[in-house]
Amino acid sequence: MKSFVNYNEQSDFSIYNIPFGVAVFNHEYIACATRIGDLVIDLASLYDYGYFDDIEGLTENVFEGYTLNDFIELGKPVTTVVRERIQALLLEGSKLSKDEKVIEECFYDLDEVEMLMPVHIPNYTDFYSSIEHATNVGKMFRDPENALLPNWKHIPVGYHGRASSIVTSGVDFHRPKGQMKPADANQPIFGASKQLDFELEMAFIVNKNTEMGESISTKEAEDSIFGMVLFNDWSARDIQSWEYVPLGPFLGKNFCSSISPWVVTLEALEPFRTTSPKQEPEVLPYLKFEGDKNFDIALAVYLTPENGAENLICQSNFKYMYWNMAQQLAHHTINGCNVEVGDMYASGTISGKEPSSFGSMLELTWRGQNPLTLSDGSERKFIEDGDTITMRGFAQKEHIRVGFGEVKTKVLPAKL
Amino acid sequence: MKSFVNYNEQSDFSIYNIPFGVAVFNHEYIACATRIGDLVIDLASLYDYGYFDDIEGLTENVFEGYTLNDFIELGKPVTTVVRERIQALLLEGSKLSKDEKVIEECFYDLDEVEMLMPVHIPNYTDFYSSIEHATNVGKMFRDPENALLPNWKHIPVGYHGRASSIVTSGVDFHRPKGQMKPADANQPIFGASKQLDFELEMAFIVNKNTEMGESISTKEAEDSIFGMVLFNDWSARDIQSWEYVPLGPFLGKNFCSSISPWVVTLEALEPFRTTSPKQEPEVLPYLKFEGDKNFDIALAVYLTPENGAENLICQSNFKYMYWNMAQQLAHHTINGCNVEVGDMYASGTISGKEPSSFGSMLELTWRGQNPLTLSDGSERKFIEDGDTITMRGFAQKEHIRVGFGEVKTKVLPAKL
Repeated sequence: MKSFVNYNEQSDFSIYNIPFGVAVFNHEYIACATRIGDLVIDLASLYDYGYFDDIEGLTENVFEGYTLNDFIELGKPVTTVVRERIQALLLEGSKLSKDEKVIEECFYDLDEVEMLMPVHIPNYTDFYSSIEHATNVGKMFRDPENALLPNWKHIPVGYHGRASSIVTSGVDFHRPKGQMKPADANQPIFGASKQLDFELEMAFIVNKNTEMGESISTKEAEDSIFGMVLFNDWSARDIQSWEYVPLGPFLGKNFCSSISPWVVTLEALEPFRTTSPKQEPEVLPYLKFEGDKNFDIALAVYLTPENGAENLICQSNFKYMYWNMAQQLAHHTINGCNVEVGDMYASGTISGKEPSSFGSMLELTWRGQNPLTLSDGSERKFIEDGDTITMRGFAQKEHIRVGFGEVKTKVLPAKL
Repeated sequence: MKSFVNYNEQSDFSIYNIPFGVAVFNHEYIACATRIGDLVIDLASLYDYGYFDDIEGLTENVFEGYTLNDFIELGKPVTTVVRERIQALLLEGSKLSKDEKVIEECFYDLDEVEMLMPVHIPNYTDFYSSIEHATNVGKMFRDPENALLPNWKHIPVGYHGRASSIVTSGVDFHRPKGQMKPADANQPIFGASKQLDFELEMAFIVNKNTEMGESISTKEAEDSIFGMVLFNDWSARDIQSWEYVPLGPFLGKNFCSSISPWVVTLEALEPFRTTSPKQEPEVLPYLKFEGDKNFDIALAVYLTPENGAENLICQSNFKYMYWNMAQQLAHHTINGCNVEVGDMYASGTISGKEPSSFGSMLELTWRGQNPLTLSDGSERKFIEDGDTITMRGFAQKEHIRVGFGEVKTKVLPAKL
């Protein structure tokens, strides 16, 4: 496929992608959008010009909203057709390619656009589905000989997180403060976290509302998933390790989580399906699945000190996930828990086997024992004030590239 | 104070209460409401008749909404005045007492009304703030000699729960199914939960949106709390005990939580303030507070078998809570976690010292070891299909009674 829009062949936003997001155009007008190369397209105006008129089920301008939720809720039969329509409109020789007035009005350069949160998130869950990550954490905090807990290979372990503090790329946050108990202290102390960390994750977004008591099978799960984003699950390790027993992570996580602004659809990721790691022991029937349910998505994390250069500190891949998204959603709903449009389900930290693929500072520096040395000579055990963490991810197969762009967040000093 | 509306002196909904909720009137019309005795009052129509016209800050009919959120967001300076206005209007000799047309149109008998969820809940957190409950659970599941974990007396331990499955009184649910590992099994099994339980809790609702990075002090906390409800944190103990390590409760909780439909304001609870249990060791400065921050609210749980009689199975009191609501909210936001209007924060199971005050079947039967015998001669280790659990709560001081009514839920068989 060739678009009439020119873009670099390394662009994440090729004609094969067609992601969805929400943009502020020229600081004044908000609408749902898509992107190709370095151009952002106002879908609400494109709708008004009649380019989606004949699409069954698309009876009102859902792109006028400040979130993608109304669009997503239309479900795959509509969202897939809309995405294919946009793709066709962007091809060389299309009707749109000759419509100068509409191109002039609906297409914006990147610097004319600010991206907002793509969805309103009613509920957020974080899984713990990388066997390498769970093993690393178990070795560090529990028993090196029995790093994986007995339940880990039987259930995609997860917990509820905080939806209110999920923000998009470019929204900086203040280092959290709180209560922690240093190993050498008798009593807990109060202060700014000294062990601020990122977690390299991805998250999927659900496109339907279910009733309480209803379950989504592994077979039905992918039809219920609109798309995916990059997810940085910011973590304060010292707060987390003091608070998390017995009810799980809380203030160590809920001060901020950051996502990439463009939602890449499962349809765009279709060419990059791959097998998952073999699951042994065999899982219970409700967790069994057929076909390739994982995706080959290259992931990288970069640390940029204040006024410094970008340092590549981690390279991982979504395909390492032991538990896949279909299993996560089937497990989440097997008890009758209802889901809602816009719900976000994160993977948990995505670590691989190699130390360079570990998806958090906790693992990369092995709890601070082996600090990273940056290009400016400085060392990092955890993340310092002024540091910017950037996560990028893309899938590529021959000439087809589909990517997520980035989620980029700067850490500001604690408000004390 | 004496109202022109007659009601039983044992009514939870006296002239001193004036709670807020959302009602369906005559199966067709939804609006925000209040209640006195056995009459439910349509506030949206009362607004239209001009009874709130001169209230500063109340510039539109927020009672027309399907939730209380828009009203609550106006904050105490408005909601307190509105409540006092309603109270004044309901007094003997008021202008409203002589306005037969408005009374005819805005006042409904209980049987003409169905109650809905009072608020949209953006985020839900469950605390674990009863020392007796935490001690009981620690004794049963961990170490009887060291039942309380080291962090428990330093932080109001809490975790994020699922907002989507919080429903109001009268909404029944199906017994959850899922994965569990019986003590005598080598492998986990799949099936309907055999250890379904209630948890007697109360919850408070927040009235403001804060920015990420902002904290609410213990001093400011009560101004941020609109009111309270009864909260039944349904729990599947067998699912929970297999899944909860290390990230906390998940499917053992998120299939259903039930709340009472009337939100009782903190102002209505003012006469019932009381001291909290002494906190030793001393808490960190950000958790210190002044004055009486607890409330004397008598709580009771009833179990009614299918076609059977109601059995009183637990009597407890909100005043037993070790951590108070101001501390919970201060802790929750100390790291900069932002709150949203309608957020719900539950107390955790409210158990007292006496075995008859334990707030769950887990504790009442000591994990099934000492089954309860009901009035029909049947025994209960946990909750069976067809059982109805009713929780009631009220505060009383001399002739002043302010209550919550009830939250009543029937357990339907699992959908297998």
